Amino acid sequence: MKIAILGMGTVGKGAYETAKTAGGIEVVRILARHEVEGYEHLNEIITSDIADIAGDKDIDLVIESIGGIHPAREYALECIKAGKHFVTPNKNLISACYDELKAAADESGAEIRFTATAGGGIPWLYNLRRTKRCDEIQEVRGIVNGTCNFILDSMCDKGSEFEDVLVLAQAMGYAEADPSADIEGTDTLRKTVISANLAFDADVKEEDVPCYGIDTISSRDIDYLKSMERAPRLMMNAAVNGNKLCVYVEPVAFPMTAMEASVKFNFNLITLNARDIGTQSFYGQGAGMMPTGQSVIQDVLDIRDGVNHTPASGEGVEKRKLKLDNKSAVHRYYLRCSEIGSEIEKIIETSEKKGDVYYCSTKPVSVIKMHEIAHKAKSDGKEMFIAALAE
Amino acid sequence: MKIAILGMGTVGKGAYETAKTAGGIEVVRILARHEVEGYEHLNEIITSDIADIAGDKDIDLVIESIGGIHPAREYALECIKAGKHFVTPNKNLISACYDELKAAADESGAEIRFTATAGGGIPWLYNLRRTKRCDEIQEVRGIVNGTCNFILDSMCDKGSEFEDVLVLAQAMGYAEADPSADIEGTDTLRKTVISANLAFDADVKEEDVPCYGIDTISSRDIDYLKSMERAPRLMMNAAVNGNKLCVYVEPVAFPMTAMEASVKFNFNLITLNARDIGTQSFYGQGAGMMPTGQSVIQDVLDIRDGVNHTPASGEGVEKRKLKLDNKSAVHRYYLRCSEIGSEIEKIIETSEKKGDVYYCSTKPVSVIKMHEIAHKAKSDGKEMFIAALAE
Repeated sequence: MKIAILGMGTVGKGAYETAKTAGGIEVVRILARHEVEGYEHLNEIITSDIADIAGDKDIDLVIESIGGIHPAREYALECIKAGKHFVTPNKNLISACYDELKAAADESGAEIRFTATAGGGIPWLYNLRRTKRCDEIQEVRGIVNGTCNFILDSMCDKGSEFEDVLVLAQAMGYAEADPSADIEGTDTLRKTVISANLAFDADVKEEDVPCYGIDTISSRDIDYLKSMERAPRLMMNAAVNGNKLCVYVEPVAFPMTAMEASVKFNFNLITLNARDIGTQSFYGQGAGMMPTGQSVIQDVLDIRDGVNHTPASGEGVEKRKLKLDNKSAVHRYYLRCSEIGSEIEKIIETSEKKGDVYYCSTKPVSVIKMHEIAHKAKSDGKEMFIAALAE
Repeated sequence: MKIAILGMGTVGKGAYETAKTAGGIEVVRILARHEVEGYEHLNEIITSDIADIAGDKDIDLVIESIGGIHPAREYALECIKAGKHFVTPNKNLISACYDELKAAADESGAEIRFTATAGGGIPWLYNLRRTKRCDEIQEVRGIVNGTCNFILDSMCDKGSEFEDVLVLAQAMGYAEADPSADIEGTDTLRKTVISANLAFDADVKEEDVPCYGIDTISSRDIDYLKSMERAPRLMMNAAVNGNKLCVYVEPVAFPMTAMEASVKFNFNLITLNARDIGTQSFYGQGAGMMPTGQSVIQDVLDIRDGVNHTPASGEGVEKRKLKLDNKSAVHRYYLRCSEIGSEIEKIIETSEKKGDVYYCSTKPVSVIKMHEIAHKAKSDGKEMFIAALAE
C-alpha cells in the first residue's frame, strides 16, 4: 500500500519509522515545508504542495499529522475527496470536524480512522469500536491526558507545588511551552467528545461539555486529599442515563486503592462499561513518537486489510439516539476555597478551616452547578479547587 | 455465517446469547448429550453425534466449549479436517494440542482462534496478536486467574483465612468444587503457555514451566506482607532475555501502589511490554458466561470478516527462535517457613521469628531453585509460602 504523511513532527516521524518495520506499507510522499532534520535522504519525496499528494493516483492513503485545524482540515478534505483513505492522530481535527470529514469520505468511498486521537498508543478507540459490534456501551471514562497525570502523580509522590512540577514537565517534554490545553482540560475534553461520540453514536460538541481542569490545584489539595486517603486524577466521564448522555471533564479524588490512583507518570488508563462484557480497561502510553506512530500505522494496516468492526447486518446493536443532558450528573465534591459565600454555603456538608483556607465536602451537587461556581471563582480571581469524590 | 456450538455449558450459553444480538451469525446446530435446561426450544437443532456437525456442509464454523481434552480434541480435529473454522475458549485444549490443531487447520484451510482461552472476556490475545504485527514483544505478565485473585483480594481486604475464603468463593461460583487447577496455578500455567507461545512464536510446553500456586498461603502471610506494604497476586511471567525465554508462574508480592495490587475481586490484569509501544495493560472479567461468550463470538466475527493480524509480508517482524531457559530468572523472595534448614539458610538475607514461624527475605535466587525448595517443603508436609518481591 502506498501512503503519504502530511507533517513530519514527532508523530509523523513515529509513523514513518513504524511503517518501515511493519512491512507492506510504502511511504511515497511527505508533506513538509522544509527539509526534515535527520530525514535528508527523504528530500526527493518531500513536497510542500498538497496537490502533489491529493492529485497522485498512486497514493492509497494519507496520514495527517500536522495537528490543529488549519490547514489540516482543508488538506484532509482535499485528499479524502480524491478518494484517499485517511488516518490521523489529530484530536482537534476529529473532535471539531469529524462529521464533515465523514460525509466527504462516505461520498468518495474513503475510510477514516483516528485511533491515536484518544489514548495515543493505547488501542482504546479500536477496542471500543470492536466491543460495540456485539455489546452496548454504557459508560466510558478515564485518564486520557498524560501531562496532567504526570503533574498530579509528581505532586502526590514528591509533595511538589503545581508550578514547579509544570516547569519540570515542560523540561522533560511532557508538557508544551503553552500548557493551557492540557492543564485546563481542553485536551481531555476533545478526547472525551471523540470517545463519547464513537461509544454512543452521539453528536456531542466540545462547547456543550462542562470542563474543569487542574490549573488551580495546589500542594495543599494533595495534602488534604492524602489525609482522606485519596489521590486526584483528571478524568473524562461519559455515561448513559436512560436516554440521556452525561458527559463532562473534571478532577476526581480516588481512594488510594482505586486503579486510577495507581496510574503513574504520564500513563493513561481508559475504561468502558458495557451491558455484557462489564468493566474493561486499557492502560498504556497516551502519547510519544513511537507509541502514537504505531497506533497510526495499526489503523493504516487495518484499512489495508479491510478490518472494519461495524456490525454486518441491520439487526443486532441498534443505533441509539442519545442526547447530551447533564442534569442527572450529581455527586459529592471535595472543595478548597478561601471564602465561603452564599452559593458555596448552600452546597457544603462539612468544612474545616486551616489557616485561611477552607477544606469542604459538598452534598450531592450537579456537575453543572459545581463547575459554574468553580469557573466563577476562577474568573473572579478567587482561590478554588474542586474534585469529585469517587465512591 | 452458519455455526455450531459443541457443549452448552456456561460459555456455550454465553456464546449462543451473544450470537443472537451480534447479527449475521446463525447457530444451526448444537452438540449436547441431553436437552439443555432453559433451551428446550433448541431441541430440534441439538444432536449428540459430532458427525452431524462435522459432516454438515452448511456449517462454516464450530465453537468448541465442552472443556477438557477428550473428547474436545477429537471433535475439534474432526471438524477442522472437514474445513470448518474453529473457535474455542478451552485453555486445556489449546495449551496441550495447539500444534496438532494448527497443522490440521493449515491443511484444510480452516482458521483457528482462541482469544477467550487467556483473559476470558478481555481481548488480550487478540491485541497481543495485533501488536505483534508491527512491534516486538519483550514480556507478557499478569493476573489471569480470577479465582485466585478473588481469594487473595478477600484475604487482604477482610483478613480471612485461605480455607474460609475458598469456601466462600465456591459458594459464589468463583471457584470450582475441585479448586486445585486454580489454586495450584495450573490454570494460570496454561494461560501462560498460550500467551508466551503466541507472543514469542515459541513452543513452550506446560511440563517445562516452573509453577507455584497459592494453596499454601495463610492469613499470616497477608499480615506480614501488609507490614511490608505489599499485597500478593498470582502472576504469569514470560520475558525475553537475549535469545532465551524465561517463563514461570508464582505469587508476587506487589507494593500497594502497584496497579496489580489494585485489582479487586475476580478481575484480571494482563500486561505486555514491547520495543516500540512500551507497557500496555488490559483489565477486565477473565471469566463468566457473557464476557467469555462475547469473546468467543468476537473471534467468530473476526473470522467471518477476514480479520487477520499476521504481517502481510516477509519483511518486518522476523520470526524469533526463542527457547525456554529459566536460568537467568533470578530475584528476591518473601518466604514463610516453620524451620530454616540448610537449603533455606543458604538463600535468606533477613529473617524474623514470630511465635514458631520464620518470615524471611531472600537474596536474589533463581526461580528454579526457589520453586524446588518450596515444592519439596510441600511434599514433605512442611509449612511454606513464597512470593517474589516485585521491585
